[in-house]
Order: sequence, then structure tokens, then C-alpha cells
Amino acid sequence: MKGVKMEINEFHINNILKDMEKKEYQGYLLAQFTNIHYISNYRPTSFAFCVIKEDPIIYASKMDMEIANKTSTIEVKEFTSFSDMLGELKKEGISNLAIEPSLVYSTYEKFKDSFNIKSETFIDAQRQIKTADEIDKIQKATQIAQKAFVDLDILNNTNPENIVALELDNLMRKYGANGSSFDTIVTSGSNSSLPHATPQDKQLEKPILIDWGAKYHGYCSDNTRTIVYTEKQNEICDIVAEAHDKAIKAIKPGLKCCEIDKVARDIISEYGYGDNYIHSTGHSVGLDIHEIPTFSTKDKTVIEKGMVITVEPGIYLEDNFGVRLEDTIAIEKNKGRIIGDLPLIIE
Amino acid sequence: MKGVKMEINEFHINNILKDMEKKEYQGYLLAQFTNIHYISNYRPTSFAFCVIKEDPIIYASKMDMEIANKTSTIEVKEFTSFSDMLGELKKEGISNLAIEPSLVYSTYEKFKDSFNIKSETFIDAQRQIKTADEIDKIQKATQIAQKAFVDLDILNNTNPENIVALELDNLMRKYGANGSSFDTIVTSGSNSSLPHATPQDKQLEKPILIDWGAKYHGYCSDNTRTIVYTEKQNEICDIVAEAHDKAIKAIKPGLKCCEIDKVARDIISEYGYGDNYIHSTGHSVGLDIHEIPTFSTKDKTVIEKGMVITVEPGIYLEDNFGVRLEDTIAIEKNKGRIIGDLPLIIE
Repeated sequence: MKGVKMEINEFHINNILKDMEKKEYQGYLLAQFTNIHYISNYRPTSFAFCVIKEDPIIYASKMDMEIANKTSTIEVKEFTSFSDMLGELKKEGISNLAIEPSLVYSTYEKFKDSFNIKSETFIDAQRQIKTADEIDKIQKATQIAQKAFVDLDILNNTNPENIVALELDNLMRKYGANGSSFDTIVTSGSNSSLPHATPQDKQLEKPILIDWGAKYHGYCSDNTRTIVYTEKQNEICDIVAEAHDKAIKAIKPGLKCCEIDKVARDIISEYGYGDNYIHSTGHSVGLDIHEIPTFSTKDKTVIEKGMVITVEPGIYLEDNFGVRLEDTIAIEKNKGRIIGDLPLIIE
Repeated sequence: MKGVKMEINEFHINNILKDMEKKEYQGYLLAQFTNIHYISNYRPTSFAFCVIKEDPIIYASKMDMEIANKTSTIEVKEFTSFSDMLGELKKEGISNLAIEPSLVYSTYEKFKDSFNIKSETFIDAQRQIKTADEIDKIQKATQIAQKAFVDLDILNNTNPENIVALELDNLMRKYGANGSSFDTIVTSGSNSSLPHATPQDKQLEKPILIDWGAKYHGYCSDNTRTIVYTEKQNEICDIVAEAHDKAIKAIKPGLKCCEIDKVARDIISEYGYGDNYIHSTGHSVGLDIHEIPTFSTKDKTVIEKGMVITVEPGIYLEDNFGVRLEDTIAIEKNKGRIIGDLPLIIE
């Protein structure tokens, strides 16, 4: 198993090294846990730095040395101090150093006077295209999450919002999830107009909006279902479902991400709810719940096979209610394929 | 209630404005969710930027506008674009802009050519000293977490590690926690030598190490207990307990943080386990689980009344077992006071 992981990690590293070479970087500094996990299979638990270079290396905190040595497919040494680390990198002839865009300023500050630094999205670009193994894990996470949702029997569940959220979290873990991919949203009644509402200690009102995901071997799933009751809620739900379906149908490698957003947004706008569609149509998922590219008005990334992106249109009527429907889409050779098999409309 | 919150937030903001004035900053940019929560009572759910200035302002994402307007004690406007935001800040005469140290590089990059930028720890310094209200919340979080631990009946619990962790999470929520302050650690046997081990689907072995915390109104608690069985485990546990007790006893406003670390580290070293003490003695807690200052070898911060810092010495014998004992300490006028009343040794 370690052999397979090492091969995949080497594949990722080699691709990034090619990107680095083109721009004459001798090193690429990563600190984000999911980036380090992606490159080495080691998941930091306190702090660590990875430098991709001819001989990639991880500087791990002392307390992580045991787990890093046991799991990393690339060399690990103990982080002692920034000045030691800087000294070693300079001695190896690194002068142009790329950094990940998510590096925090206080870390950048330690390096900025010693290297020519620019932030580069090499790692994000590489992570955009999932391997078969990564897609399998996202599928397994989705399976777990959807099975848990079915078991929740939401139509007959009489618990308050926060208990329903807890039940869903527990069911996901029962079915093999390592945890939830984000704080589970179970919201209802007028609170459903808040896209990221916090579950309350109150009985479920109508409609019920549930946004949830499981984590499986580090990989996230992401779905949303809204259970509607009144005529008005049904009318809004039909529009959101139309936007959802048509956006997914429109997905094709070669198109730009913003074109998919436009399909969903135009439908919602035609019905007069453009101002009530207050977020993007979707985001990529993987080791992180929010990755790039996104189906947003501004993202001109060209859609490629291997990307995994959500489609989640919604309409939010302030102080009244909201409806959102979300599936996660694997981009295949000619089309987008919905991951999972949970019906869109729960009734 | 909003009135009280506004007063507290104004108090924090005024202190930070004074720090800013001394260094001639006209603005201070924050994006970290807990920093924005601290300043405004609004907890971002997607993204937001707060600029502390004469008239502080929050730029919230469109999808957060409803919740931001409902909860923020300071002015909120919708974030439209970085160029709009930059234009507005420049128009107001901001030229020297401080940023929080945790700001990600990709955001810093948007601002760096338009302002004189330096990172400043004004907000961290302010957050170091907790108000009575903040200490109350940490106490309540601790109460919940410790009550949950007692209910777990760990000495008679026959579930596997991951189910015990789940039970503890559920009990904390049952008793009023909004969630766990971090991924609950329940580890046992040889895995206990990994300070941040992940709970496994395996029966509890000996010793059992549990590191857990509850979140209450955003504030974190943090405790660790290790249940030991063999003579060797008891011997190690006695040393860790001695380090724990003497370090806490040594706490006094006016001393430096590193002096408390030294008390614990010296005891462990005297018994010959210095190399097996692979982390710092403690960290501050608040809205984040890891805050500054820390009881570490290098932190020279002077201890002050109002700080809340953990003391958590540990000894880790690789591939054998580990013992850690942790309490959270409120710094009072002349001493440190342990928050909570859970016995240190569970037997």
C-alpha cells in the first residue's frame, strides 16, 4: 500500500516540479495540512512545512515526528527553528522560492528577506484533477453520507434541529466516516434563508434544509436537500431543481466554469429571483471542502476531466425561507456525472 | 444583550485603536473568523474582512449579509470586490495598514501595492487578556466537558476508541456544547505515544489517554486525562502529575511564560525523561483552541491577570505508551486557578 501511495505522491510531485522548472523556482513551500497530506500522505497534527524540490523534504514539529516517520512517503526531519531551515534551503542553492497562496503572513515574513518569493497555485492546479483513487474516496464519502441521510428518516423525524444534526453526524461515523466534512447544517423555517445557518435547539419547522457531508480517508462529500411543504415553497423548489438539473446537464470539459454558473443563474433570474441567489453555483471538493475551481460568475477556469465540483443553486427569501439543492459532480470525458444516488426531491 | 456586547466590543476596539495610533496606522485588517467574532459578535460563515479604524467596518460576503446584519455590533457592508474595498479605504486616507499575522498571503497580495503594510499582533495581544464574561464562557465549556467525561464512565467503558470519542462528543452536545473544541482524542495502548493520535476502531488498550474540550458560545475548554494500569505507567504518571502540579503552583503574574515551562520541563528531565517531553507545557485558549501566549521554552511573555492558559506536561515512550495530564488555568491576581474540578488521577 505504501508503494502505491508513494507512486501517486511521486506523480504529483513530478508534475509540480515541471511547473516549478518552467518558472525557475528551486523550491516550493507548503504548510497547509491538506497540501502536505496530498504530497506525502502524512497529515500534520500540530505544524509542519514541506519544501518541494529535487529531494522533497518535510520539516515536522517534534511532537509529530513519530507519526510523520510512520506515514510520510517523503523524507522527514525535525523542525528546529526557522533560521536552521532557512540556512539549509539556502545552502542547497534555493534562491527563487514559490509559496502556497494560503501561507499565513507570519510565516511568509520569516522567509521574505532570504529568498525571491512569489505565491504560485501549482499545488492547487494539481489538486484540481483528481486521480481515480481520489474520486473513489469522494464516492465512498458520498455513499456514507447519503446512507446516513436516508436512515435519518427526516420526513418522520420529530427531534429539534441540533439533535437531527447530531444524529446525522453519528450515522455518518457509524457507516465509516472519519467525521463530517464541515459543521452539519440542519435548519428550518425562516432560518433556512441563511445559507450557512447553525442548527438550533428548536423543533423543525418548514421547510427543512440539510447541508451535510462525510469525510472518508480525508476526502469530503457535500450534498444539500430541502424538504418543502407549502405551495410557495414547492414553486421555489421547482425553480432551484431546474437550475440544478440544467447546470449539471450543461457541464462539459472545454467549457469555462463561469458558463455553468451562468446556466443556473440565468434560470433563477428569469423567474425573477436573481437577487435572491446570493452565492456561487458550486465549488470543488477533495481533501478540503472548498477547493478551486468554482462555478462562479468570475471563474474562467476551463473544465477538465477529473475535476469534482458541486452544483448547488439556491433561492433565499429573507425572513421567510430558503431552498438549496446540491450534488457533487465528477467531470468525465464528455459530461458531468452525479456522485451518489439520493433523489433530489425528498417527499 | 446587544448593548452589553456592543460595549465589550467597543472596549476591545478602543484598546486596539490606541495601539494603532502609537504606530501611526490608520487601519487594521482582519479576516480570521475568530478575530472578527471577537470584534463584532458576528461569526463569518463564508468570508469577511474587518477593518478597524475610526469607524470600524466589516465587508461581508453576500451570502452572509443577513446573519451579519442581525448579529454584528459594528457597521456591515457587502463585499463586492477587492478593488472597490481598496478604493474606499484609500479614499478615507488610509496609507499605513496593519494586518493580522494569520492573514493568508493571497489576501495580503491584494493590498500590498496600495498600502504600507506590516503585520501587528494588536488583536492577539488584546485577546490574551480575557474579560470576566469570556472566562465565564470558558468555565462553562469546561463544566460541560468534565460532566460529559464523568458520564462516559471510562473505567467501565467497553467500546472501541472511536465510539468512546463519539460518545464524549455527543455527551458534550447533550450538556449544551455547540460542538467540540477540536477533534476529540481517545487513544490507548502504544498509540498513546502519539500526542495527537486519531481514535481507531479498536478496543481500548492500556493506558487510555483522552484529550477533549467543549465549545460554548464560541469559547473552548481543554483537558487531558490518562488512565494508567501497570507499575511502569503509574511511575510515569506520577512524574507527569508532579510536573503538572508544580508548574501550576509556580504560576504568578509577573513571571515569564517560559519560566513555567521550565518548572515542568526540569522535573521531567530530572527523572531522565527530558527527551520524551516533546511539546510545550501549555497554550492559551479562548475563541481558538491554540492562542498566545504559550508556556514554551521560548515564550518570554509576562504572565498577566486575565490570561487563560493550559498546563499539559506529558511523557511519550515511542511504540510503548504516553501519559499527558492537562488542566486549563485562569490567571488571577496572585496565582493560577484550575478551571473545573475533575480529579487529575482517574482510578
